[in-house]
Amino acid sequence: MSSEDEITEWFARQSKLNTDDFPIGIGDDMAEIKVGEASVLVTTDMLLDGVHFELEKTTLKQVGYKAMAVSLSDCAAMATIPVAAVVAVALPKGFGEKELKKLHCGITTAGRKFGCELIGGDITRWKGKERFAISVAMLSKPAANKPIRRSGAKVGDIICVTGTLGGAGTRKHLEFEPRVKEAIEITAKATINSMIDISDGLSSDLNRICQASGVGAVVEAERIPLSDEAKRRKDPLKAALNDGEDFELLFTLGEKEYKKLHQQWEGPIPITLIGTITSSKKMQIKAAGGRVRDLKAGGYDHLGN
Amino acid sequence: MSSEDEITEWFARQSKLNTDDFPIGIGDDMAEIKVGEASVLVTTDMLLDGVHFELEKTTLKQVGYKAMAVSLSDCAAMATIPVAAVVAVALPKGFGEKELKKLHCGITTAGRKFGCELIGGDITRWKGKERFAISVAMLSKPAANKPIRRSGAKVGDIICVTGTLGGAGTRKHLEFEPRVKEAIEITAKATINSMIDISDGLSSDLNRICQASGVGAVVEAERIPLSDEAKRRKDPLKAALNDGEDFELLFTLGEKEYKKLHQQWEGPIPITLIGTITSSKKMQIKAAGGRVRDLKAGGYDHLGN
Repeated sequence: MSSEDEITEWFARQSKLNTDDFPIGIGDDMAEIKVGEASVLVTTDMLLDGVHFELEKTTLKQVGYKAMAVSLSDCAAMATIPVAAVVAVALPKGFGEKELKKLHCGITTAGRKFGCELIGGDITRWKGKERFAISVAMLSKPAANKPIRRSGAKVGDIICVTGTLGGAGTRKHLEFEPRVKEAIEITAKATINSMIDISDGLSSDLNRICQASGVGAVVEAERIPLSDEAKRRKDPLKAALNDGEDFELLFTLGEKEYKKLHQQWEGPIPITLIGTITSSKKMQIKAAGGRVRDLKAGGYDHLGN
Repeated sequence: MSSEDEITEWFARQSKLNTDDFPIGIGDDMAEIKVGEASVLVTTDMLLDGVHFELEKTTLKQVGYKAMAVSLSDCAAMATIPVAAVVAVALPKGFGEKELKKLHCGITTAGRKFGCELIGGDITRWKGKERFAISVAMLSKPAANKPIRRSGAKVGDIICVTGTLGGAGTRKHLEFEPRVKEAIEITAKATINSMIDISDGLSSDLNRICQASGVGAVVEAERIPLSDEAKRRKDPLKAALNDGEDFELLFTLGEKEYKKLHQQWEGPIPITLIGTITSSKKMQIKAAGGRVRDLKAGGYDHLGN
C-alpha cells in the first residue's frame, strides 16, 4: 500500500495540465485556474464521523465549523482570500431538518468569519448504517501577491511556524482558528518562498515542502514552540513533530525577509524561527546538546490502515 | 421531515449573497461567482455506494465516470463549459492503490470527453465498516450566452426535452452521456428561457422550473419521448414522469425561438416538444383523450427515508 503522498504524486503525473490555464495543479494545498485576466483557487476536504470527529462527542455545529475551517486553512496555506464554498453531505438515517440546520450554523459561522459564502451543496442519505460524511469544496482568490506554493523553498531559507504545535485535543481540533488573516499579513510584510498548513504534523508537512522544493531542512528541537497540551504529554517534542491537526502555518523565507517580518510582526499569534532549509535533501533535527539526527515524516497518513 | 427542495429553500433564504459578486446563488444547478470581468460556476455532487451505485455490481471505473458525469450534467443544465474538477473520496477498509487507479481512470475518461481536468482532491478512509463515498466539485465557465437558470420560464413558453425518458437501468445510469455539447448547441441556436437537467424525474424537475419561475405547466402525455426501457415497464408514462437519473435536458423557450431551433436542429439527440408553460401555477398533464389532470412532482427525493 502506497502512502497518500505517493498516490497524489501518481495522480499528478497522470495529469498533463496546461500551465497557462492551470498555473497550479495537483499536489499543492489548492489548485489555481485562470479565469480571464484573474484566477481562482480551489481545494476540497472530506471529513468522516469516526475519523475526523466523533458525532457522539461533538455538536453538529462544531462539525460544520471544522469542515469549513479545514478548507479555510488551505486558503491560508496559499495566502489566498476565501471567497465561497459548496458543501456535500451524506446523512445517516434519522438525520433531518433539525440536524441540517445545526450543521448549517457551524458552516456559516466559520465562513462568515473569513468572508467565505456558502453558495451551494448536495444532500444525500445512506440507506444502511453508514456514518455521517461531509465534503467541502472552497474557492479563493489571490491576495496582493501570487499564491504561495510548497515548492519555492530555497537553500538557506529560515523555517518559521505560527502559533504552537502538538497535542491538538478534542477542543482545539474542532474549534481552531484557520490562519487566513495571518497568512495575508505575513505575505504583505515579507517575501515568502514556500508555505503549507500543518494538517498532518510538522514532520510530515515540512517533508512535503522539502520534497516539492528539492531541498532538505534542519529543525532545532529547542526552538519548536510547544502547545500547553503538548507540554503535558510524555514526549512533548514527538507530539509537536508528529501530531496532526495543528492547522498552523509552516513557511520559509530568506534571512533578510525574515528580519523584516520579525521587526514588523506584532502578533498576537507568535511567529517562531524553528530551523533552516539545507541542500542535503533530507530532514534533520538538532537536539539541545547540538547532536543532529535524521528526522522522518512521522505524521498522519490518511491512507494508513 | 421536509423535502430536499424545502431544505434547499431554507438554506437559500439564510444566505444574503451580494448579487454583484454572486450572480447565481443557492437553488440552481450551479452557483456563479464573478472573478474580475469574467465568472466561474460551481456545483457539487456526492455519490454513495448502496444508493447511487452498488459496488458489488459495478466497476470502479464506472463509478468514477458516473460521479463526474452527474456534475457534467449540471454544467450542461446551465449551458456552461466544464473546466475542472476536484474529487474527494471516503475509502472503505481494503481499498488501496489499485482501486484508486481504476477510479481515476473513470474520472478522467469522463472529464477528458468534455475538456474537464482533474486538478485536485482529498483521500480519506473509514475506520469502521462504512461504504465508499465520492464527492465531486466541478467548475465551469459561461459559453457565448449567460448561464441558463431555472427561473426564466415565461407563460406561453414551449417545454422541450432532449433524448428519451424513463427506466434508466443499471447500464444507462452508469454510462450516460451528459448533454454538455447539446446544451451549448441549443443555446447557440435559440434563446432559451429556462433549463434544468432531469436528475430526479421529469415531474420533479419540471416542478423546480415552475416553482423557480412562478409559473405552471401542461405536459401532453402522448408527446413524452419514452425510452425503450420505459416502454417495457408496466406503466411507461409513470416511468418517464418519475424515474430519476435520465440526465436529459428539460428547457423552455418562446414559440418563435422553438421554431428556429426545430428547423436548425440536426440531432443526433432528438429534441421533443412536450408541453407549454401556463399561468396556472400548477402542473397538469393532458391525456391522449384530452382529459387534463393535475401532475404532482413524484420523482426521487434525496431526503426520503
